[in-house]
Amino acid sequence: MSRPKPLSGFPEFLPAGRIVEQRVLAGLAETFELHGFASIETRAVETMESLTRKGEIDKEVYVVRRLHAEADAAGELGLHFDLTVPFARYVLENSGHLVFPFRRYQIQKVWRGERPQEGRYREFLQADIDIVGQDTLAAHHDVEVARVILEALEKLHTEYGVPPVVMRVNNRRLAEGFYRGLGIDDHLAVLQRVDKLDKIGPPAVRDLLTDELGLSGEVADQCLALAAISSPDESFVERVRELGVSNDLLEEGLAQLAAVVRAGAAAAPGRILADLKIARGLDYYTGTVYETEMAGFEHLGSICSGGRYDALASDGRTTYPGVGLSIGVTRVLVPLIAKGTLDASRIVPTCVLVAVDAEETRAEADAIATRLRARGIPTEVAPRADKFGKQIRYADRRGIPYVWFASGEVKDIRSGEQVPADADAWLPPADDLRPAVVRG
Amino acid sequence: MSRPKPLSGFPEFLPAGRIVEQRVLAGLAETFELHGFASIETRAVETMESLTRKGEIDKEVYVVRRLHAEADAAGELGLHFDLTVPFARYVLENSGHLVFPFRRYQIQKVWRGERPQEGRYREFLQADIDIVGQDTLAAHHDVEVARVILEALEKLHTEYGVPPVVMRVNNRRLAEGFYRGLGIDDHLAVLQRVDKLDKIGPPAVRDLLTDELGLSGEVADQCLALAAISSPDESFVERVRELGVSNDLLEEGLAQLAAVVRAGAAAAPGRILADLKIARGLDYYTGTVYETEMAGFEHLGSICSGGRYDALASDGRTTYPGVGLSIGVTRVLVPLIAKGTLDASRIVPTCVLVAVDAEETRAEADAIATRLRARGIPTEVAPRADKFGKQIRYADRRGIPYVWFASGEVKDIRSGEQVPADADAWLPPADDLRPAVVRG
Repeated sequence: MSRPKPLSGFPEFLPAGRIVEQRVLAGLAETFELHGFASIETRAVETMESLTRKGEIDKEVYVVRRLHAEADAAGELGLHFDLTVPFARYVLENSGHLVFPFRRYQIQKVWRGERPQEGRYREFLQADIDIVGQDTLAAHHDVEVARVILEALEKLHTEYGVPPVVMRVNNRRLAEGFYRGLGIDDHLAVLQRVDKLDKIGPPAVRDLLTDELGLSGEVADQCLALAAISSPDESFVERVRELGVSNDLLEEGLAQLAAVVRAGAAAAPGRILADLKIARGLDYYTGTVYETEMAGFEHLGSICSGGRYDALASDGRTTYPGVGLSIGVTRVLVPLIAKGTLDASRIVPTCVLVAVDAEETRAEADAIATRLRARGIPTEVAPRADKFGKQIRYADRRGIPYVWFASGEVKDIRSGEQVPADADAWLPPADDLRPAVVRG
Repeated sequence: MSRPKPLSGFPEFLPAGRIVEQRVLAGLAETFELHGFASIETRAVETMESLTRKGEIDKEVYVVRRLHAEADAAGELGLHFDLTVPFARYVLENSGHLVFPFRRYQIQKVWRGERPQEGRYREFLQADIDIVGQDTLAAHHDVEVARVILEALEKLHTEYGVPPVVMRVNNRRLAEGFYRGLGIDDHLAVLQRVDKLDKIGPPAVRDLLTDELGLSGEVADQCLALAAISSPDESFVERVRELGVSNDLLEEGLAQLAAVVRAGAAAAPGRILADLKIARGLDYYTGTVYETEMAGFEHLGSICSGGRYDALASDGRTTYPGVGLSIGVTRVLVPLIAKGTLDASRIVPTCVLVAVDAEETRAEADAIATRLRARGIPTEVAPRADKFGKQIRYADRRGIPYVWFASGEVKDIRSGEQVPADADAWLPPADDLRPAVVRG
């Protein structure tokens, strides 16, 4: 077998990158659990029927088939392309065994048959949180999920050096109410065109609104004026009111969005923005919508998106409304690790290498290692009874900070300091115990 | 959408089962890292060329194809059916960036299109450790991986109540040397028939050896006598010697197996057995072979198997010998969780529910929760300002042990005890902080 080549779109980390990923995932899980989210994992496959329900995404699905199975659409399976479809199915399947509101997090790979490019992969890891209710779900959960995600991303920033983020938030009710207050019936048609603002600019959007939808120039300008509003605090409310449109749904949306921005700014100052042009496409969102950019990596697009859906799932009798966000872990980490922005302080968990004097005394080295591990110190025994210089080089190549000698001494190979030590008592400095994430 | 049904062979856990799985996986990872194994993850897919190299398993492979891709064998992908094939590919692909001997653990789902039955799934989780060398790999690593796995499984037993195991170990060199010492050339043919002992019994195997291979009755009896030997210590060596066969390869195998059993018995007394009938099929193993049964669940077959392979991977110039073991995590956990042998002490991470007096004072409850979380206490705020009795019931249904009142008191809802408490100082007993694995 000649040396295999990487598969485009299927990124893999070397051990150092994986250590960064492990720390980041542990940090996310810790935040989610501090907020009472329970972990679930769903199977990698869903029925094609379930995956293609929404229609629009079917070309990206990977179909899965046993090698010798006959091609047969019935009961066919595909790899999940997000964690929302599987979660909705899990909720319906297990509704009798869950207690609502049900708060879950889910960190798993997803697959999309897209053309790979920077920030877009065929296999990538997502970290989702959602809160789902039975029949109803209070609006304060929209506030809560934003706060949890901002806290999680801020922890990644302060603890591991992941760049800071800006979360942009909007509310579908706000826009719908505003358009209705202007006498517009087909609010989705307007939203669809306003969604193109970043791509084609305000004058072109104005043309679409007047030419395609037949809005008056004045009404179109009002729509553009709404979309131009953004603020890091509640001041957007006043600016919307200054546009002089009144509608109950608009008021509801304003109040909900103000609550999200107020709480988000308190949880992570400077990281949240009400941005009234955010639409998040035309999919199932019905209230709050969120998207998030990472400072210096705006070209990657949103690294964390989500929203409120009044019918995450429904079995015909009961409807399950939900609100949630999804962090694109691979989209965040692959560029940071590839550029060396994030790295690991060593490439192995090992803190101590126990040197071996001679193969005949390997058992003694093993016994020392066992005593160190019993106190939680990751320890390896040298694989060969080479000269000590070579054993120290073995440690050095892996970044292992300490080498232990059967003579009862431990050497910090970075400083060269060597001191007598007792394998039942010696402890490394806490920072040396595990590999750390370091900024390149 | 009506209620979906589970897919046979694709097990999923409810949140309590997932908590058990999380703890078990964390316990395994902790042991592996204490021994210096670095985590890696590989992509879910490999090229079909890579997956079907060994030929025998191809009918179980799941092929993966984009929905609108044209059927085209070239460059086709399949889901990995174990973690050894992907690891071998990873080692070859990254050999220039790894340092050898390379110690890795890998905990990932694998997929096989087999007919589902108890203990056999189409999607299941494996936890593998392997040590791989460049050109050579010392025999003491065969000892080491057995010790690490026994330590890991013993920890699952003592900390989480997973049943104890017995690991059966043999050595291919020992058998090959013995057969050669008897004048047999085709040792694999003998091994293949001896491997049927458990299924068809000694007299039938003897018939196969004499009738199909033309061995004399005396030689066949010697082969059966070897296979009948087992011991929890090194005494098997003496019993093999009593059979009066001498061969260098036999001696090498005896010494290697004795070292594994000696170290294994020291690491986890009573959990390892030299068993000279263990063959592990005819695949790539070339030295030590391991298989493991769980007490009371012997009908599931081996829950942890592996061995030494002198050529885990090769790029034509360099050969990478390896030794490793794979724990069938799903095979272990699904029956234990389904039977209720293992359960979680609660179904959410949450330790404290902060009650809400009225929706107008939700922000005060949020502030209390933030103070508790700042000290690492998983905390939720009640979703509705219901009567306190109903809020306590919310906690009770999830197993949340404490309810916090804005009045500055905390109630242990199990005992009913309610005491004044300061959100900046109060700590629950350590056992209550996180959900625990409990024995049903």
